[in-house]
Amino acid sequence: MAEYAAPLHDMRFVLKHVVGLDQVNTLPGCEEVADDVVDAILEEAAKFAGEVLSPLNAIGDRVGAGLKDGAVATPPGFKEAYRQFVENGWGNMSSPAQFGGQGLPSLIATPVEEMWGSANLAFKLCPMLTLGAVEAINHAASPELKQRFLPNMVSGKWTGTMNLTEPQAGSDLSLVRSKAVPQPDGSYCISGDKIFITYGEQDYTENIIHLVLARIEGAPEGVKGISLFVVPKYLPGSDGSPGERNAVKCVSLEHKMGIHASPTAVMAYEGATGYLVGEPHHGLAYMFVMMNAARFGVGLEGVSISERAFQRARDWARERLQGRPLGVAGAPKTAPIIQHPDVKRMLLTMKSCAEATRALAYQVAALLDRSRHHPDDGERRRCQALVDLLIPVVKGWSTEVGIEVASLGIQVHGGMGFIEETGAAQHLRDARISTIYEGTTGIQANDLVGRKVGREGGATMKALLGEMAKLPAALAGSGNPDLQAIGARLSAALAALSRATEWIATLYPTDPGAVAAGSVYYLKLAGFACGGWMMARAARVAAAQLAAGEGDAEFLRAKLVTARFYADHLLPQADAFAEVLVGGGASVKAADEALI
Amino acid sequence: MAEYAAPLHDMRFVLKHVVGLDQVNTLPGCEEVADDVVDAILEEAAKFAGEVLSPLNAIGDRVGAGLKDGAVATPPGFKEAYRQFVENGWGNMSSPAQFGGQGLPSLIATPVEEMWGSANLAFKLCPMLTLGAVEAINHAASPELKQRFLPNMVSGKWTGTMNLTEPQAGSDLSLVRSKAVPQPDGSYCISGDKIFITYGEQDYTENIIHLVLARIEGAPEGVKGISLFVVPKYLPGSDGSPGERNAVKCVSLEHKMGIHASPTAVMAYEGATGYLVGEPHHGLAYMFVMMNAARFGVGLEGVSISERAFQRARDWARERLQGRPLGVAGAPKTAPIIQHPDVKRMLLTMKSCAEATRALAYQVAALLDRSRHHPDDGERRRCQALVDLLIPVVKGWSTEVGIEVASLGIQVHGGMGFIEETGAAQHLRDARISTIYEGTTGIQANDLVGRKVGREGGATMKALLGEMAKLPAALAGSGNPDLQAIGARLSAALAALSRATEWIATLYPTDPGAVAAGSVYYLKLAGFACGGWMMARAARVAAAQLAAGEGDAEFLRAKLVTARFYADHLLPQADAFAEVLVGGGASVKAADEALI
Repeated sequence: MAEYAAPLHDMRFVLKHVVGLDQVNTLPGCEEVADDVVDAILEEAAKFAGEVLSPLNAIGDRVGAGLKDGAVATPPGFKEAYRQFVENGWGNMSSPAQFGGQGLPSLIATPVEEMWGSANLAFKLCPMLTLGAVEAINHAASPELKQRFLPNMVSGKWTGTMNLTEPQAGSDLSLVRSKAVPQPDGSYCISGDKIFITYGEQDYTENIIHLVLARIEGAPEGVKGISLFVVPKYLPGSDGSPGERNAVKCVSLEHKMGIHASPTAVMAYEGATGYLVGEPHHGLAYMFVMMNAARFGVGLEGVSISERAFQRARDWARERLQGRPLGVAGAPKTAPIIQHPDVKRMLLTMKSCAEATRALAYQVAALLDRSRHHPDDGERRRCQALVDLLIPVVKGWSTEVGIEVASLGIQVHGGMGFIEETGAAQHLRDARISTIYEGTTGIQANDLVGRKVGREGGATMKALLGEMAKLPAALAGSGNPDLQAIGARLSAALAALSRATEWIATLYPTDPGAVAAGSVYYLKLAGFACGGWMMARAARVAAAQLAAGEGDAEFLRAKLVTARFYADHLLPQADAFAEVLVGGGASVKAADEALI
Repeated sequence: MAEYAAPLHDMRFVLKHVVGLDQVNTLPGCEEVADDVVDAILEEAAKFAGEVLSPLNAIGDRVGAGLKDGAVATPPGFKEAYRQFVENGWGNMSSPAQFGGQGLPSLIATPVEEMWGSANLAFKLCPMLTLGAVEAINHAASPELKQRFLPNMVSGKWTGTMNLTEPQAGSDLSLVRSKAVPQPDGSYCISGDKIFITYGEQDYTENIIHLVLARIEGAPEGVKGISLFVVPKYLPGSDGSPGERNAVKCVSLEHKMGIHASPTAVMAYEGATGYLVGEPHHGLAYMFVMMNAARFGVGLEGVSISERAFQRARDWARERLQGRPLGVAGAPKTAPIIQHPDVKRMLLTMKSCAEATRALAYQVAALLDRSRHHPDDGERRRCQALVDLLIPVVKGWSTEVGIEVASLGIQVHGGMGFIEETGAAQHLRDARISTIYEGTTGIQANDLVGRKVGREGGATMKALLGEMAKLPAALAGSGNPDLQAIGARLSAALAALSRATEWIATLYPTDPGAVAAGSVYYLKLAGFACGGWMMARAARVAAAQLAAGEGDAEFLRAKLVTARFYADHLLPQADAFAEVLVGGGASVKAADEALI
């Protein structure tokens, strides 16, 4: 079976010619990342993803993580892969330089993280969550706590986890009940049960650093009484050794639909020693710092799964011989199924969705870097507003698309897709969690229509729409029929997004319930329209390079074909999403729950 | 965990007030099926589904079917359930009376079969395939073969299978290589390998009757050289005993994504004795007789899964407490999640899709009965044409919808949906095969746009559109705002279907490739529009009964709410499907396979 091959060509094209790598690597603090350095990083990452992580993906699914006497055994090969991953410096790319990280821009780290997710989603979760924990500690903890934990977490010697969920507190963290009792030495005694803790226990490293939400005795009810604690598995000694075992243990692992190699732990804190991060009762705000990054990371999982599922389906469709394609002149009686129009349509849907979600995610990564490093305060704020607007779109839309694409991947395989050995089914099973964890699509959508569009009268979205609206006009005057067709479809999709944005901006203050009833439609509309904008930009560059005789003609022609397909096949949905959003709230409201 | 409860209220409502049970049970040969008989059958079936089959569904998934020394062990409880199923007469409802069956109308058998699929999809496949085999033998075999095999198959003492697929011959049966060599006694010696044989081996019954496609020595190439054979596991003696073991065996079982309790066998025929069914080289035509029934049965699986996934998600959403619903006056701080607008939207999507696919399937069942039993030849032909048109829609659309609905069911559960013990994930894993087996959605769609619409200039679809178009006009004059709104949405959807039909009728003769590239869009468009027609008819009856103070007011109000939701949320897609069909063929054609 073919292993994952990173789409280096498309990654580089988007980085360099669509989202402006050259502008990111002139930002203060990002100057070291010259073009050839980026190329080298991507090539090395592609090797590691294809040669080390991808071959472990199937066995990880088949064997899964197991628990015996409180100790987790990850599937064969995973521990060694993690060791190599850390040794090769892949664990600390984005971590702060102050604690030994490489501090690379998000725009460089993003394609690399995409590769890990394509090659082995279950493996990727461990470094992703460690990075999130590093960011939260670095953001809010005392210098002493940072010094005690961050160097070993940044190096990958120790891993990090996020402990939010409890059986009664899933999406609603106000219901968190875990308790923290102050101790004379300034530490806290932590008790409670946490569920769904990804890599809550593992056999990769000598220590695990848990970030735990809990209530300090006497804290107010609701989200304003939640504090954040560092609770290490072993209490580090001053010599840097892991130290004494803490009173936290993994009591069971969940039996999940997918990502079997990732141990999803039920954790029991039984009077464990914990250290308060930052101020009391500010835990949720600190956790959101790492959740924003984690949400972007999960959105990227949608890109990863789409790419991997597409590659597998395309390779299958090129080899599998069945039937004579309809309406293809001179087609043989038994042709590769990629020649059948419906199979081609499915593959183009998969490919164009992978490319559109990728381009939008990279665009957000570039904005993230500008929001952090741009010298101008106003530009930083402008970029931050766009990042805040688009992260729920990247998270919600890319993962919803990833599930669709993984499901199409099974369909392309026919009956063989339903057989586990083929590998196509794993992608759907793995992908299925991505629209749920780090906030469901509904929660992303409510964040988008509420905090991001409703409360500011749609200002940031309208600014983005103004920017995007310039493109169709430019494409109309290009003289290139493909670009003109793409521009026309994009124009219609942007009109739908504009109409929907106006409707939300107007209605949200008085009827947030009607808006919430259609918020997922708006999220998808925003995703497809913004994805269309990215694809149209890519197509424009491709056409220009082709006309100038630059670049790889076959890649550029493929980009034009895929962008045109996306415009013709995916963008026409936009109007339906707007229509259902605007016209559908009443029938949800009218449905008393007793009638459902 | 709550077991499946058959939606008897909706089933009866659709049967009696929407699709015309009273017209079916006045057809010649159907007169015995009085209303109270139907009620009794549905109630007994509901009990068997809820009390016997549903409790086995989870263990069937967890344990699965196993193979040891060529013998299959089905999961605990399945063999006993099959015994009861047969004893209670559920196995022979639709079988011909001549061989001991009950010969009940399809309209009665259909809701019952829906229940089996909801309660336990993996179990249901065995009687479904047996019935298909019975129909093929009854259609084409000699009186002697019929007498030898049908009584025991009809009684359920023996089961039947369909052996079509070979490793190199999946959707393309012209590639079948299995061989049949004539023997002096008139039988044939069958050799070859067959894969994906559902219940190819089991421990339910003393004998299994395989229907096998193979080529008689010297037969022409392609589909015109394929013949159909009966190959029993044991060669029945004249005394009715199973007799001597035949040279056919199960060499392995597939490891599948879902329907684990259903043994999917790799079968080896090693010089097995087989008996020719009907004429040589006509095998494919005979097989299509049973495939049409099987396609309808698989379409019904979409209904079954949608209903089961909906019930589970609704029950969960009523119990699970999280957060304060947006924009709901007086909502508590922590409410059942069914009150959250986005969760309500998901549940209403699930419910309305279950109801729409059910109503369309029952409509086709009623047409099937008329096509078989109506005294007027012209009416029989008219109904048969509609059945032929709509079976690919029921098969393709209902199963595609079933997958979406099962996936939404997971989403409603949040993180718990990804944990296998919850049960929501099984429905998606089980459903995932339904768009593939008995012909993929692409194959259904090509059948629809080709044989059913393209080749007859859209005549049958235009006749159906003419019939459907009367409804919006009637609803517009109803004075009921819900019905008027439903009528307006339906009218737009029918216009889209009409536009798409004209386009196909015009283009198919000269450019079937462009039509094939969008055929799945057309299939979904036809499904959603016809489903909208069914929901609108149901809403009209509900409104009339409410106005007259007849029936159960809560059920009728719920039906109106669900129909309105379907119109507002599902029907607006219709236009996008038409647009993509008409405007999307070129970009598929332009995509040379090397560019994908």
